[in-house]
Amino acid sequence: MIIQIEPNIKEAELQALTEKLESLQYNTSQVSTQFGEYIIGVGKRAFDIRAIGTLPGIRDIHRVSDAYKLVSKKWKVRDTVIDFGEGVKLGSGHFGMMAGPCSIESEEQIESTIKHLQANQVRIMRGGVYKPRSSPYSFRGLGQEGLKMWYQQAQKAGIRIVTEVMMTEQIEDMYDYVDIFQVGARNAQNFNLLDALGKVDKPVLLKRSMSGTIEELLQSAEYIFSNGNEKIMLCERGIRTYEKAYRNTMDVNAIAMLKEKTHLPVIADPSHGIGLRSFVPPIALASVMAGADGVIMEVHERPEKAFSDGQQTLSYQEAERLYKGLRQAYELRSSL
Amino acid sequence: MIIQIEPNIKEAELQALTEKLESLQYNTSQVSTQFGEYIIGVGKRAFDIRAIGTLPGIRDIHRVSDAYKLVSKKWKVRDTVIDFGEGVKLGSGHFGMMAGPCSIESEEQIESTIKHLQANQVRIMRGGVYKPRSSPYSFRGLGQEGLKMWYQQAQKAGIRIVTEVMMTEQIEDMYDYVDIFQVGARNAQNFNLLDALGKVDKPVLLKRSMSGTIEELLQSAEYIFSNGNEKIMLCERGIRTYEKAYRNTMDVNAIAMLKEKTHLPVIADPSHGIGLRSFVPPIALASVMAGADGVIMEVHERPEKAFSDGQQTLSYQEAERLYKGLRQAYELRSSL
Amino acid sequence: MIIQIEPNIKEAELQALTEKLESLQYNTSQVSTQFGEYIIGVGKRAFDIRAIGTLPGIRDIHRVSDAYKLVSKKWKVRDTVIDFGEGVKLGSGHFGMMAGPCSIESEEQIESTIKHLQANQVRIMRGGVYKPRSSPYSFRGLGQEGLKMWYQQAQKAGIRIVTEVMMTEQIEDMYDYVDIFQVGARNAQNFNLLDALGKVDKPVLLKRSMSGTIEELLQSAEYIFSNGNEKIMLCERGIRTYEKAYRNTMDVNAIAMLKEKTHLPVIADPSHGIGLRSFVPPIALASVMAGADGVIMEVHERPEKAFSDGQQTLSYQEAERLYKGLRQAYELRSSL
Amino acid sequence: MIIQIEPNIKEAELQALTEKLESLQYNTSQVSTQFGEYIIGVGKRAFDIRAIGTLPGIRDIHRVSDAYKLVSKKWKVRDTVIDFGEGVKLGSGHFGMMAGPCSIESEEQIESTIKHLQANQVRIMRGGVYKPRSSPYSFRGLGQEGLKMWYQQAQKAGIRIVTEVMMTEQIEDMYDYVDIFQVGARNAQNFNLLDALGKVDKPVLLKRSMSGTIEELLQSAEYIFSNGNEKIMLCERGIRTYEKAYRNTMDVNAIAMLKEKTHLPVIADPSHGIGLRSFVPPIALASVMAGADGVIMEVHERPEKAFSDGQQTLSYQEAERLYKGLRQAYELRSSL
Repeated sequence: MIIQIEPNIKEAELQALTEKLESLQYNTSQVSTQFGEYIIGVGKRAFDIRAIGTLPGIRDIHRVSDAYKLVSKKWKVRDTVIDFGEGVKLGSGHFGMMAGPCSIESEEQIESTIKHLQANQVRIMRGGVYKPRSSPYSFRGLGQEGLKMWYQQAQKAGIRIVTEVMMTEQIEDMYDYVDIFQVGARNAQNFNLLDALGKVDKPVLLKRSMSGTIEELLQSAEYIFSNGNEKIMLCERGIRTYEKAYRNTMDVNAIAMLKEKTHLPVIADPSHGIGLRSFVPPIALASVMAGADGVIMEVHERPEKAFSDGQQTLSYQEAERLYKGLRQAYELRSSL
Repeated sequence: MIIQIEPNIKEAELQALTEKLESLQYNTSQVSTQFGEYIIGVGKRAFDIRAIGTLPGIRDIHRVSDAYKLVSKKWKVRDTVIDFGEGVKLGSGHFGMMAGPCSIESEEQIESTIKHLQANQVRIMRGGVYKPRSSPYSFRGLGQEGLKMWYQQAQKAGIRIVTEVMMTEQIEDMYDYVDIFQVGARNAQNFNLLDALGKVDKPVLLKRSMSGTIEELLQSAEYIFSNGNEKIMLCERGIRTYEKAYRNTMDVNAIAMLKEKTHLPVIADPSHGIGLRSFVPPIALASVMAGADGVIMEVHERPEKAFSDGQQTLSYQEAERLYKGLRQAYELRSSL
Repeated sequence: MIIQIEPNIKEAELQALTEKLESLQYNTSQVSTQFGEYIIGVGKRAFDIRAIGTLPGIRDIHRVSDAYKLVSKKWKVRDTVIDFGEGVKLGSGHFGMMAGPCSIESEEQIESTIKHLQANQVRIMRGGVYKPRSSPYSFRGLGQEGLKMWYQQAQKAGIRIVTEVMMTEQIEDMYDYVDIFQVGARNAQNFNLLDALGKVDKPVLLKRSMSGTIEELLQSAEYIFSNGNEKIMLCERGIRTYEKAYRNTMDVNAIAMLKEKTHLPVIADPSHGIGLRSFVPPIALASVMAGADGVIMEVHERPEKAFSDGQQTLSYQEAERLYKGLRQAYELRSSL
Repeated sequence: MIIQIEPNIKEAELQALTEKLESLQYNTSQVSTQFGEYIIGVGKRAFDIRAIGTLPGIRDIHRVSDAYKLVSKKWKVRDTVIDFGEGVKLGSGHFGMMAGPCSIESEEQIESTIKHLQANQVRIMRGGVYKPRSSPYSFRGLGQEGLKMWYQQAQKAGIRIVTEVMMTEQIEDMYDYVDIFQVGARNAQNFNLLDALGKVDKPVLLKRSMSGTIEELLQSAEYIFSNGNEKIMLCERGIRTYEKAYRNTMDVNAIAMLKEKTHLPVIADPSHGIGLRSFVPPIALASVMAGADGVIMEVHERPEKAFSDGQQTLSYQEAERLYKGLRQAYELRSSL
């Protein structure tokens, strides 16, 4: 249920409303859009709307019958821009690039990557410290220790950090060292994690699940948004199809369609999207032309030595050429 | 790494080995198969195997290069049978049926279902109390309170409970009231949850993820097994394909192939597998013929009133006919 | 357009009707169902139905708005049985098995196969003489010459022949030597071929296309049926999915659904359906349990030497065991 | 088998070679690449290569073990450019646009379309006269009569015609009125049609089949090429996936990969590729960025009245904006 409250609602009225909802076993969170202020109530059982409709301070009450609402363009007309501070913005005219290794490996690797990013005016660095691995015997990342090491260098360099969070319990520990919490494809429907990230005030990069539909991706975003966190970026990272020539099939159609359905920024992940290094540049360029607000890429000083899988990782030289091309493509698209 | 230990290893030797591994930042767990006793060590970095190879009490050391090992037939030749007590068994000659509603709704519903199951000698009851829902606005189940209510009735009736666990934090609370922890399709690659269930001594029903491969399913099982819990059932629940005539495409090929690759029991979920009530019986029968050790089905006194979605739910009458057919099909297949 | 004619329509009335339709540039064919006699008219442009509605001998006129009509159960309630003579029947209580090599290779191979079939009371032999091959450099079959050689032996042995026709021009030449014209997956939407086979009075085995939908398969059958040939068997032969563990993913769901939608017999092709020899038996048995009226299988005296691809071909011993199992499964299913 | 012949082979030698091959029941065709002249021989049975290896005029003999050879970049290094005369070229620096209605409907429609194309310097017009239709009751196009009407206007205007051919028998009749023979998705593995088009001296636009692999598309092209026709364009037109938000899923990955594997031009068909009008422009632009040498689009004066399905058809205004964008995108990509 979405309750629109009066702009001049009194503190006491707001509290009365919240208490009433909680007495009905509804969890509440507060959200604001260009149309006004809202209380989102999610509860176990339907009840007679009139039980709260007469409380003071309420302008309107919406039952939610659509699969998603807050993340749709109907609900928020103007595109969301996410501001990471120090001039780093993403969305609606601000093109964002995120690059870095698959896994954070060492102090030297971090240093080398940061130099490469700075030389190319890329302000957001990606890298895994908690790695979801299909096999239990694989390396699962450097963990918290690696994250702190990374943070120290990144902070000095004015570089933002995006890294994957895999479970609710990690959020608190990671919070101080992370600029963007990434939700991986395997956790895109881990609803408890989404709920928890909705209560955090840092941006979330939400990947489409392994073979998730566009509707499911938007619903997962709605989980985060309805808990109060509006800073969400959606990420297309390839789907599974019958075609075996690539590791995944990048679905640029999803990028175009998401841009029509939602006000949230859309990011392309061509490294996972096609999964083959030599095809990352054309697929990245295609994604921008289809409407992407940003691109996240794997880059490594020596891709063939990269942990854990350099097959989809660009060298610095390849990445440099691509950054330029992407900026030109974004400019061209914006002018059309 | 998998370390085979001598059958007559001394307590002190075992402790020395475990400490040594932990000093190398390896987590350890103990597993036994028909071939002997093993220590599974999962760690961040490779090290020289000779550092432990000379310790007393060790018979052999295996590096794990395969995607999965412990769950494969190579590792354990005899098929796993899971014993739920009071004569309820599943696997290798013991056909298992699990039936019940999508969601636990009320005391009356539980009572009615249990009567139906008892009348048909079905010993395991399914039902959701924590429901993963695509939309944040949907009913998410009765939770712990519903589980306790259910447990009281089931225990008296000698009925086993299988229900979904969605996060690590729930395991402890649910433990006393659950006979089988179900991992849903959306959490099939939630590796932290799998790790945690590997440390529990109750059986796990592990569903194939939304568009998971057979290899990934076996790897997810390996997560549980390598943590020490060998009581795992694998569940085929339909995959996503281009065909829009059904809600999912039940992949009976997976059942046949899993039976060749693993010693673990394989369960078919035709209710989700095809997702359309009138097709549940033929698909259930086909699954048994393809090799399934058990079938899990949605059944409700009044399917059209079932929460949350009765489209794939059988009536009692339909279910009764199906139970009989399934038993005959299982008998026929066993005789071929 | 489907025009129901009066049972006692006069020859002159029928001719007047046909001529009228042809003057409107409509092609016509005559079809009969349990409800009566019909004229099917397919033309380029819609016209005012009253232009023919007043002609004598017409009972009713149906515009066709559904995707398919004549092949649906609504149109013909009783299941179609196809009679191949000499007691060989298929459909509605008559279980049919078809077995033989991928390609007809030699006189000796034909002889050996026929002996094997006779010893097992299998009355229909499959084999390719015109082979659709992805690569232009591959062997394309023995052609007409091979077909005649095959026919001579089959006829003596009372064995029916099912073989693939690839183009309209082949129909006439093949006609005298073929009992069932098979349309392969790659030609399942070759509409000219379907039209032509609709004008032939021999049965057609129509395969689902590579990634065809159930609706498309029924529409392709409608092409044949609406041209006047009602002897059609539909064949499920596996679809393409993301799963790489098998060559194709046998879709038993399609078998169950087709049995509900159409009165035509449904055949399972497990050899292509999963494409791996050791899985052909379980998938064949599953298909029968899901509702198949028949099974078509690849069998060869020495599968490892079979042309062109023995990976999905059973040995005689494997096939013998399977025939028995299939008959028992069919019997069980019929009794449920 | 591919036989490289000496550049100075004598007429008599060539004839002797051809006769020898035909006596071995091999069909032959002649092909030339940048490396020299070749005879392609396709036959029923393997034979001892020495039977022809000693004939005069032969430089080398290649057995074909790869899935395709002549269409690969290994075989022909320089990209193929197709010249349609009067300055209309496509491939390797020549960007090609093809636009027009789904179906040719009337003289007025042709006139209007040609004016629109001329105003925008688009030189190739698409349109269907023989329409493959899933349902036998649907309009199948104006046929030969419509083609002639179209040809008269197109010729005067210097516009090239691309239209679908559905069967071998149509080739001869269509030949005089067609500039590019299009092979539709449903006929992409109609090998007899491909063989026949390989013997024609007009360019072929070959679509990827409904759920065809990249390898199969290249093998289908090899059918045409090995018969002697080297003027082939490959066309990506969307594949089938589980995602139901679009009618098809345009696979831009295929465009990027085809450009690496083959020297043949690659065309994008965004109208069918995503199948929804408002997404045709972003997907077309993305396709060019991924490497497409040309784009084929559906355009109609009044899309909502277009036959047979205007859902994927652009209006003139929309198309005009897109043509400009595509040219700029092609220019940018060429400069990167």
